[in-house]
Amino acid sequence: VRHPDVGTTPVTVPDLDTPALVVDLDVLERNLDAMADATAGAGVALRPHAKTHKCPEVARLQQQRGAVGVSVATVGEAEVFCDDGVDDIFVAYPVWASERRGRRMAGLAERCRLTVGVDSPAAADTLGRASRSSAGPLRVLVEVDSGHHRSGVLPDQAAAVATAAARAGLEVAGVFTFPGHGYGPGGAPEAAARDEATALARARDALEAAGIEVTVVSGGSTPTARATIRHPGPVNELRPGVYAFNDAQQLALGSCTPEQVALTAHATVVSAPAPDRLVLDAGSKVLGADRPSWVGGYGCVVEVPGATVTALSEHHAVVSLDPDAPRPGIGARVRVVPNHCCNAVNLVDELVVARGGVEVDRWAVAARGANT
Amino acid sequence: VRHPDVGTTPVTVPDLDTPALVVDLDVLERNLDAMADATAGAGVALRPHAKTHKCPEVARLQQQRGAVGVSVATVGEAEVFCDDGVDDIFVAYPVWASERRGRRMAGLAERCRLTVGVDSPAAADTLGRASRSSAGPLRVLVEVDSGHHRSGVLPDQAAAVATAAARAGLEVAGVFTFPGHGYGPGGAPEAAARDEATALARARDALEAAGIEVTVVSGGSTPTARATIRHPGPVNELRPGVYAFNDAQQLALGSCTPEQVALTAHATVVSAPAPDRLVLDAGSKVLGADRPSWVGGYGCVVEVPGATVTALSEHHAVVSLDPDAPRPGIGARVRVVPNHCCNAVNLVDELVVARGGVEVDRWAVAARGANT
Repeated sequence: VRHPDVGTTPVTVPDLDTPALVVDLDVLERNLDAMADATAGAGVALRPHAKTHKCPEVARLQQQRGAVGVSVATVGEAEVFCDDGVDDIFVAYPVWASERRGRRMAGLAERCRLTVGVDSPAAADTLGRASRSSAGPLRVLVEVDSGHHRSGVLPDQAAAVATAAARAGLEVAGVFTFPGHGYGPGGAPEAAARDEATALARARDALEAAGIEVTVVSGGSTPTARATIRHPGPVNELRPGVYAFNDAQQLALGSCTPEQVALTAHATVVSAPAPDRLVLDAGSKVLGADRPSWVGGYGCVVEVPGATVTALSEHHAVVSLDPDAPRPGIGARVRVVPNHCCNAVNLVDELVVARGGVEVDRWAVAARGANT
Repeated sequence: VRHPDVGTTPVTVPDLDTPALVVDLDVLERNLDAMADATAGAGVALRPHAKTHKCPEVARLQQQRGAVGVSVATVGEAEVFCDDGVDDIFVAYPVWASERRGRRMAGLAERCRLTVGVDSPAAADTLGRASRSSAGPLRVLVEVDSGHHRSGVLPDQAAAVATAAARAGLEVAGVFTFPGHGYGPGGAPEAAARDEATALARARDALEAAGIEVTVVSGGSTPTARATIRHPGPVNELRPGVYAFNDAQQLALGSCTPEQVALTAHATVVSAPAPDRLVLDAGSKVLGADRPSWVGGYGCVVEVPGATVTALSEHHAVVSLDPDAPRPGIGARVRVVPNHCCNAVNLVDELVVARGGVEVDRWAVAARGANT
């Protein structure tokens, strides 16, 4: 990652206490445009995952570009976006409708079209109970495991879950998967996109063989989106999230270029106690502690070519350096590309929004910590 | 980790949407009592690190037991605790006093005794500027590297920093270190405690040789505290933080027993799609993504003996199981001991406080996200 290539925001947004997360609005808008155009061109609906930004402002920019609604991970996130006027929300998660959460869902279903994930007859029963106290039947998609081996049933088990859901009084609209095994080096994204298409087609066929009409076949993630757009197969809806901001994981995967990184942590060099070491004030409490084995460090330092964060504490990022290389001095401002923007955003109250290095807005991370 | 051994809180706090962080108040109080008694017995002042809990309520319990004040990592955290009436605050960090932060520090110094860390002449100069606009001189401790190799100067460079600080108009009160290399397997905590004593004694002697009176020699961390209390050497103040709650890292280090774990994430089993796999709704957005190589997983599942979280997404914890072992069903409540309680606490708006499984209070994580 080299300085002139990341976004366009110069290193200083004046009078900003660090660490702070700064969004380059030009880059964000270009990222949103590109994904909207690509999915539209492929005839695939775009339902961006809002867990990445947790910001009503970003959801509005996505809807203005044709997104059919938002995906979220929790009922709490759904509440935030529904409050802001989003009228079509999918909780892409195997929701357990405890009594309290069931009441919250029934309340939401009166204000927007609410769809949730289901992957077991037991969860379908509790959702059915919540559905009976809501104005209309709750809508569900059956979650399918396409190779990530997290939640979701195997394709040949999808019909049994769908049948149980229908019997519980739910409206079964189709199937979804998260091809998370696309987060890996080499050809992982392309292979995962193929797995996604195969698994979703099988699950769709199984539901239809059981007499359930399938209208939604939902897939997608930022790493796999490009391959799926090229060959959508059965997929008629995509749910990428990270593409709005991008991050060091996506750089490592080749899913984005440095020019497409819209979010950076602005940090200050606070210590330089040895010739081969700098310490920045951006630690795990602003970058997040994510570090997959295939990413070389805890974030890329834009202003020090090739440098990554080699050790991370809550408020210290240790950057190892070639002792002979030029480096910023104590007090200098630098930018760090976080490994995983979704977890970084969830660590701050607000995002600083800049165009060409000039602060133009602050966006509250409204769904921050909306974990339930 | 076995069920009956972690805290005393039964698995269900009624009517609680998961995931949620629950504090067992009995265990917390015992942990606070034990550290207060041990440090008092050794004649060492206790200045607990408040970054762990970020809660004025916990700081008050610590002060009631004789703590001399709090340690914090940021000026933002200092502001929160000062607002709650803490009158002696040490920012255990090499603070860079940018103009705005300098003004904030001058404001704080009028309301409490504020001490901050310094490890370079450059930072001392900016602190001196802030000090000149405050009511009295700012107080500093020189940070020494005792082997963790993060921030802090080597002991033989401490006098140069102290001299620069005094020349900048700061009140130099002594030296501090964080023996973070004690976070490791085997004898790492004991070895780090020895390194801490050696480095602090050398730095203290160097300052005194340069004509600077040293009143504070501050060390400590939860893993090293026990060894330092046994042989304080030069140390007259300790700054452990995690001991209040403990976590899976401390269990792995042997720094606490299961009975001393006061904080757990209450979670629900949301999916069980294969005989060897459970999925919980506690992901990296409530547990944090910390995972040192010497900890076997992303958190211990209390109700499934021996089980750890083997893969972690933002809202999914995947637990790998022996297919023949008994396990909780979908919808069951379980508790997870996070790897690093400081990062977990920073992910929630409030802590649920329980005694014997009955919710007795909720504490706002008031300094949540106070990163600057």
